[in-house]
Amino acid sequence: MASQPLTSHPGPQSDSLRGTALGALRGVGQVDFQASVWTSLVILAALWVESWEMGLFAVIGAVVSTLTARLLAVEHDTVAQGLMTYCGVLGAIAMVVYLGHHPSTYVLAVSAALTCTLVTATLNHLLVPFGLRAFTGPFCFVALVMVLGAPSFERVWHGTPETAITPATPKSPVVSWTDLWQGFFSNVSQIFFVGTWYVGLIMLAGLFLAGWKVGLFAVVGSVVGLLTAWALGAPAALIGEGIYGYNAVLTSLAFGVVLLRPTAWNHGFTVVAAAAATALTASLSVLFETFGSHTFTWPFNITTWALLAAVPLLPRITLLTDADADADAA
Amino acid sequence: MASQPLTSHPGPQSDSLRGTALGALRGVGQVDFQASVWTSLVILAALWVESWEMGLFAVIGAVVSTLTARLLAVEHDTVAQGLMTYCGVLGAIAMVVYLGHHPSTYVLAVSAALTCTLVTATLNHLLVPFGLRAFTGPFCFVALVMVLGAPSFERVWHGTPETAITPATPKSPVVSWTDLWQGFFSNVSQIFFVGTWYVGLIMLAGLFLAGWKVGLFAVVGSVVGLLTAWALGAPAALIGEGIYGYNAVLTSLAFGVVLLRPTAWNHGFTVVAAAAATALTASLSVLFETFGSHTFTWPFNITTWALLAAVPLLPRITLLTDADADADAA
Amino acid sequence: MASQPLTSHPGPQSDSLRGTALGALRGVGQVDFQASVWTSLVILAALWVESWEMGLFAVIGAVVSTLTARLLAVEHDTVAQGLMTYCGVLGAIAMVVYLGHHPSTYVLAVSAALTCTLVTATLNHLLVPFGLRAFTGPFCFVALVMVLGAPSFERVWHGTPETAITPATPKSPVVSWTDLWQGFFSNVSQIFFVGTWYVGLIMLAGLFLAGWKVGLFAVVGSVVGLLTAWALGAPAALIGEGIYGYNAVLTSLAFGVVLLRPTAWNHGFTVVAAAAATALTASLSVLFETFGSHTFTWPFNITTWALLAAVPLLPRITLLTDADADADAA
Repeated sequence: MASQPLTSHPGPQSDSLRGTALGALRGVGQVDFQASVWTSLVILAALWVESWEMGLFAVIGAVVSTLTARLLAVEHDTVAQGLMTYCGVLGAIAMVVYLGHHPSTYVLAVSAALTCTLVTATLNHLLVPFGLRAFTGPFCFVALVMVLGAPSFERVWHGTPETAITPATPKSPVVSWTDLWQGFFSNVSQIFFVGTWYVGLIMLAGLFLAGWKVGLFAVVGSVVGLLTAWALGAPAALIGEGIYGYNAVLTSLAFGVVLLRPTAWNHGFTVVAAAAATALTASLSVLFETFGSHTFTWPFNITTWALLAAVPLLPRITLLTDADADADAA
Repeated sequence: MASQPLTSHPGPQSDSLRGTALGALRGVGQVDFQASVWTSLVILAALWVESWEMGLFAVIGAVVSTLTARLLAVEHDTVAQGLMTYCGVLGAIAMVVYLGHHPSTYVLAVSAALTCTLVTATLNHLLVPFGLRAFTGPFCFVALVMVLGAPSFERVWHGTPETAITPATPKSPVVSWTDLWQGFFSNVSQIFFVGTWYVGLIMLAGLFLAGWKVGLFAVVGSVVGLLTAWALGAPAALIGEGIYGYNAVLTSLAFGVVLLRPTAWNHGFTVVAAAAATALTASLSVLFETFGSHTFTWPFNITTWALLAAVPLLPRITLLTDADADADAA
Repeated sequence: MASQPLTSHPGPQSDSLRGTALGALRGVGQVDFQASVWTSLVILAALWVESWEMGLFAVIGAVVSTLTARLLAVEHDTVAQGLMTYCGVLGAIAMVVYLGHHPSTYVLAVSAALTCTLVTATLNHLLVPFGLRAFTGPFCFVALVMVLGAPSFERVWHGTPETAITPATPKSPVVSWTDLWQGFFSNVSQIFFVGTWYVGLIMLAGLFLAGWKVGLFAVVGSVVGLLTAWALGAPAALIGEGIYGYNAVLTSLAFGVVLLRPTAWNHGFTVVAAAAATALTASLSVLFETFGSHTFTWPFNITTWALLAAVPLLPRITLLTDADADADAA
């Protein structure tokens, strides 16, 4: 959710069209907090590499949520930066992953993207008194209730699709070298529900395009996620699929790149946050499985909201100010 | 929750008595956001038509919650408008529906009404930073924990009463004409836990007494609820009992009559909100059934809080101001 | 959480060390809202009487959470009063109770204490807009997610320990004299997960050391808890172990000693709050058991937050101001 000024300002009409198109594209990168058009293009390409359904639903989500924001007259810059779009991208992908590829899923993906835009406005308003931002919380709320409700509706529910099943894995915590290096990359792709290591590799390359610091903190998050999950004794098979690390990657990007100033104490705090997000993944998986939903990026959101809200009372940890960000960009 | 000025101001003592009595009565109509005494009387009559237990417990809830507010010195106008009462009405009815008609239920209904008044103060205070109001949230919280806790207590729990069981229905989504027209009316009565179509018809008549616009948006909500539930493929039998539509009626009344200005965009937003509340009904039913509670009016509250909180960031959607309301009343 | 001014102010370095040591000790008493060093020492002794594991983990929690706060440069007085410590004390004890005494539990106790300090900062910041304080909420959140997640990790989970099992009790609500008098004391010790009556007796003596009023409201809370649980028909065996009363004791201490002015109406409100916390214990036990967690002091926190947030709209109930507290101390 870094800000990146629009350099050219043509007439209002074409500006509006260009802003909407840019917003739809940047929404893909904003899932990882990046407004870079190149990063977005690479991540989108990676989704098409995984499968045409993933790529198509990402596009549907991006277009519908951006148009919804535009129609409801959301402030121009917010739309053009993709900040009303990224939850819709995830929401539409989640529909095809958790409901399967059926005609009704297209209708639900459109509904999910539309609702994600509304709930993005909701959360960003509700979090103002706390000095927090929505992150991917809107997507988590919308996906939670839609996945929860879907089996009640005959015209929507066609049985659990293969993509939604976490395969019954051996519980063994003995991690092989393959688990480790595949997990390192799939930690990055699992943010978009993809457990394929080379999709993660492409996405990581996309993150490095946004800046070496962005790529570096994605790497740090992935490594911290692997180490924490290994140390606690999580099932090796899940570590290899990135199930235990994708929240650590997001948390590391959030604190390391977007939220905190680059000090030694803050880097330590970022590592603690990424480890906490990894541990929380198990707790929330148990919680959501109880009533038939999924973990999504809740561990990242809850960890980041909780630790960010602690900062004002912890003088050792310092927030990045707009001035810092400008100096950094210069 | 519309405001309606008290026209006569006699001496403070009789004013206080009259205010308390008016508050207790208006609390019935305020469940549907109406301060009209006539609407309240008609709805109360409809509850007695359903059964004397429903009527009696509504009266107990109204009296106890209003007296609690009075004893705790809540501001006079708030009490006289029934704004500390409507949750207690629902809370007391919920006790007889979910615990059955036993001597202990009277004690619990009094506790529920008292607690509803306290939690109404709580929520109205907590929601101030967000610019939201409590709606029927206090009732939902109190009923949630009381229904959840009751089976743990020997002197309170006498087995699940017949009234608390949603009959095992055929799952078929094929809606008959009878399902449709009965559902249309029971969507209105189900707000008060009543699935009898002619009770809903009487209540709808009561809403039209408060103004043609009030009745119209109740109709709109009921129709949107029916259509959404049918389109998604909800079980026809539940549609016929109003299970899928009562939250849509409340949501439509909230956005259509109380919260938004009468513009085309806002009417569209109201329809989307009513549809969202219908879909959310399934999600929350699954969630609450997992640990043994019930849906109550959570879908209405959550939908209305979420979409109302989004409005400040969506310039196309415009809130009704006090000036509008005065112009409307004049 | 009563304030008690530091009387001597030596040089900053020794002041800092002394403040940290005092904070670690006072954190034990602050679980019951008491900054008294004597109260803390007596409660800590009581924990060692129960078992050396309980005593040791309380010390680990106190030291780790206080040092965490110090390292993160939390404001000196807050640390020295034990206000960043009390959740860590409970968090570390909870680990040994719910995970058993294993080498890995020491690592988790340190993590729990560290996280409790962070989440104490979080909640105290998030609750500012509502005029509320964190109470033992941070401990409840941290213990909730750690107990929930632990069974997913091979290196952490060694089966449910004996200490975590509520024995299958006869459901009979017929209370014997032994249940009553043992419950009266274990209501006090159960705050620290201890169901042994003489440990509760020692702790109650410690509370009287902090002032007769403190001891008195602990007694009131315990009696209200017993009466409410008996009247509702809770299982007698659980009443005897303090399971139904410890939240009432904390709630009574909070409203009776710390939060409200000493008026008749406020005393009545305190009794209602203690009774509500007792009833809520059953609801939350059912809720948390559904997905495999525990009740902790959630009933106290939820009741106290809810009823304290109601006070601004209830003029009959009056908050203790700083001026009152000073007059009281003089």
